[in-house]
Amino acid sequence: MGFFSKDIKTMDDLFVHTLRDIYYAEQQVEKNLPKMIEKATDASLKADFEAHLAETRRQIERVEKVFEMHGVKAKAVHCPAIDGILKEADEVAGEIEDKQVLDAALIAAAQAVEHYEITRYGTLIAWAKQLGRPDCAAELEKNLAEEKAADKKLTSRAQGGINLAAAE
Amino acid sequence: MGFFSKDIKTMDDLFVHTLRDIYYAEQQVEKNLPKMIEKATDASLKADFEAHLAETRRQIERVEKVFEMHGVKAKAVHCPAIDGILKEADEVAGEIEDKQVLDAALIAAAQAVEHYEITRYGTLIAWAKQLGRPDCAAELEKNLAEEKAADKKLTSRAQGGINLAAAE
Repeated sequence: MGFFSKDIKTMDDLFVHTLRDIYYAEQQVEKNLPKMIEKATDASLKADFEAHLAETRRQIERVEKVFEMHGVKAKAVHCPAIDGILKEADEVAGEIEDKQVLDAALIAAAQAVEHYEITRYGTLIAWAKQLGRPDCAAELEKNLAEEKAADKKLTSRAQGGINLAAAE
Repeated sequence: MGFFSKDIKTMDDLFVHTLRDIYYAEQQVEKNLPKMIEKATDASLKADFEAHLAETRRQIERVEKVFEMHGVKAKAVHCPAIDGILKEADEVAGEIEDKQVLDAALIAAAQAVEHYEITRYGTLIAWAKQLGRPDCAAELEKNLAEEKAADKKLTSRAQGGINLAAAE
């Protein structure tokens, strides 16, 4: 989570730090999605990534709202996990020449991002509830539901033709 | 995925590289779990991590079997994603003084690892099937089922008391 963990003394500290971690992660996703949109060759996949970019921007706003509701400053902390996941995505996006293989790799990379976000939102929601903040949990639930839907869409996109075409 | 992606020309290349990525990831998890076992204070959580270490060793063997079935050398490639995820886990495990807050953070870290593995196995299974290798897919399905079960167990462990105790 990229924080000075000695500063974490309570569950509330842990919640705030993890919120800062996902805030950083969402900002990095926002920065990286345009590259993935550019690389994607399948028109439907490109459209999915574009829709997810708009969604990501709304998710960032929701995280900012949770910071505000919780009475802390919206601040990002460096998160090595999302950096590593996006670095892998970048490597894949950079060089594969075959367009269909590239699309398959882009889907896999995007799903790794979704799963990172799914696990972090799941954790944050559980902690928010335990800290007596169902209102914060409810906001974060909206982001979790969107990430899960995005992951499912990518699975069906992969199964619906992109991977099949690439394996021919 | 830490490979020279210009070497990836076909879906088969992408499958093999991603198999090498998860092979590296599982090996890193095997190396890091003993530290998490040592840090965990809740006896049930400690036991879960110990069981998952034994499971991880069997999973590594299954990945090696898939390499063999597919006729390629079992080889790991550096995977920045799992390195980032484990680096975060390490930071958390290192410094939090409150035992219950530490356990909650360890669960969150372990779930991030599980989700990375879930997404990679999901992708590999889809690609194996599309490449006409249902036999490889079946082996990988065993690992996926175990990772999903481990993630669920961690969720119930968190909900079953560790987080609640830490939030008091």
